[in-house]
Amino acid sequence: MTYCCGILVRDGLVMVADTRTNAGLDNVSTFRKLHIFRKPDRLLTLSTSGNLSISQSVVSVLNEGVENPETGELETLVNAPTMFQAAQRIGRAIRRVYESDAPGLQAADISYEVSFLFGGQIKGGPMRMFMVYPAGNFIECTTDTPYLQIGEHKYGKPILDRAVHHNIDLYDALKIALISMDSTMRSNLAVGLPIDFVVVRRDACIDELTYRIEPGEPYFSDLRDRWSAALRAAHIAIPRPPYAGKRG
Amino acid sequence: MTYCCGILVRDGLVMVADTRTNAGLDNVSTFRKLHIFRKPDRLLTLSTSGNLSISQSVVSVLNEGVENPETGELETLVNAPTMFQAAQRIGRAIRRVYESDAPGLQAADISYEVSFLFGGQIKGGPMRMFMVYPAGNFIECTTDTPYLQIGEHKYGKPILDRAVHHNIDLYDALKIALISMDSTMRSNLAVGLPIDFVVVRRDACIDELTYRIEPGEPYFSDLRDRWSAALRAAHIAIPRPPYAGKRG
Repeated sequence: MTYCCGILVRDGLVMVADTRTNAGLDNVSTFRKLHIFRKPDRLLTLSTSGNLSISQSVVSVLNEGVENPETGELETLVNAPTMFQAAQRIGRAIRRVYESDAPGLQAADISYEVSFLFGGQIKGGPMRMFMVYPAGNFIECTTDTPYLQIGEHKYGKPILDRAVHHNIDLYDALKIALISMDSTMRSNLAVGLPIDFVVVRRDACIDELTYRIEPGEPYFSDLRDRWSAALRAAHIAIPRPPYAGKRG
Repeated sequence: MTYCCGILVRDGLVMVADTRTNAGLDNVSTFRKLHIFRKPDRLLTLSTSGNLSISQSVVSVLNEGVENPETGELETLVNAPTMFQAAQRIGRAIRRVYESDAPGLQAADISYEVSFLFGGQIKGGPMRMFMVYPAGNFIECTTDTPYLQIGEHKYGKPILDRAVHHNIDLYDALKIALISMDSTMRSNLAVGLPIDFVVVRRDACIDELTYRIEPGEPYFSDLRDRWSAALRAAHIAIPRPPYAGKRG
């Protein structure tokens, strides 16, 4: 399983991804699912969920590039002229891997599951974030709902719905993404530490902060303890239901 | 969609169910999903999720009864000798409806989806709670994890995991079930008011409290406001991440 979350606020972008993969319940491993592409004029972040063989192949296709039959140019993720065209290239790479791998997967009764969060900025253009589906189509994050999730998204969605707005501080967005990750890990053991994250400030085109949270890391451990204690205090502080002797 | 939750603690049983049904997104209705069976020597609660035509048919079969070919006795839910045998009868009713309805549903490409929470007590026996699956098999709630859920269970699971223990007060269990319902309704519009619930005290064999929460009901509105405010305060109180200038 996987949980990745991206938040795009006024001041920039946060992307958080766990690292746990499992082939069945008895084969659990650690793989990086958050990829960062750094160039002088752009900073791109890509996180992956779904079948690891598919997502890795898609990333390899994006790195090797696909020749454009009309121009002869080798189109990679990092040489895309705009964020939109970069998202289109992810979609094409997904379809290319589908063409080569899906028949074999189908023969083994394995579904073609893969999703991507793709965000970042190219100098001169806006910061954007997309979620790319297994069919290669994609949606874009907007200010109304300034976050996107892939993988095991439900456990961590309530806190995002309540706390994330376009105008929150960039590091508050990171904090809320980590709370969302904590809620997910608490309820689904297939999502687990270490956690990778990246913070990209708007118009800076560099990753201001890239970090991996390992088990026992003090801030995240403290965040988990505080969140647990606050939730406990919160439900204890709510009065008991007043209904009495009502039937019908 | 549906969300139903049952909590079985030291002092008794709480069962909570929403009432929203939908046939597609554009056909939303209100149906009672929490059923209570009262007899002098027993109190049984049954909540349903899945395809409404299936769950209603199963309840009708349980009410009409199935003749036991060996004894000739008409076996209904309420005349079962024990809670375990009552759960078995739910399983048999599910299979009976499957035999009659599944071929037609399959022809229309509709899957046979139905689940039940079944709880209560028969005088002289223990209070028990079961979750019955579409295949008619079932599991029983234990003191380690004293709750069961059917339907849209993920949004409301984190608070149950954190707050429910075997020894909590019965009305605290109700309160936590209502918080769990609130989290679910907040993230999935297909789960909605009114909410039905029942509280059954152990060894009393009556429903001490049966109630329907309608939109605007003061306690539940206050609970929702307090929970929202407490969550907001909780994430605001957590310090911002201390990482600075880390890359790699």
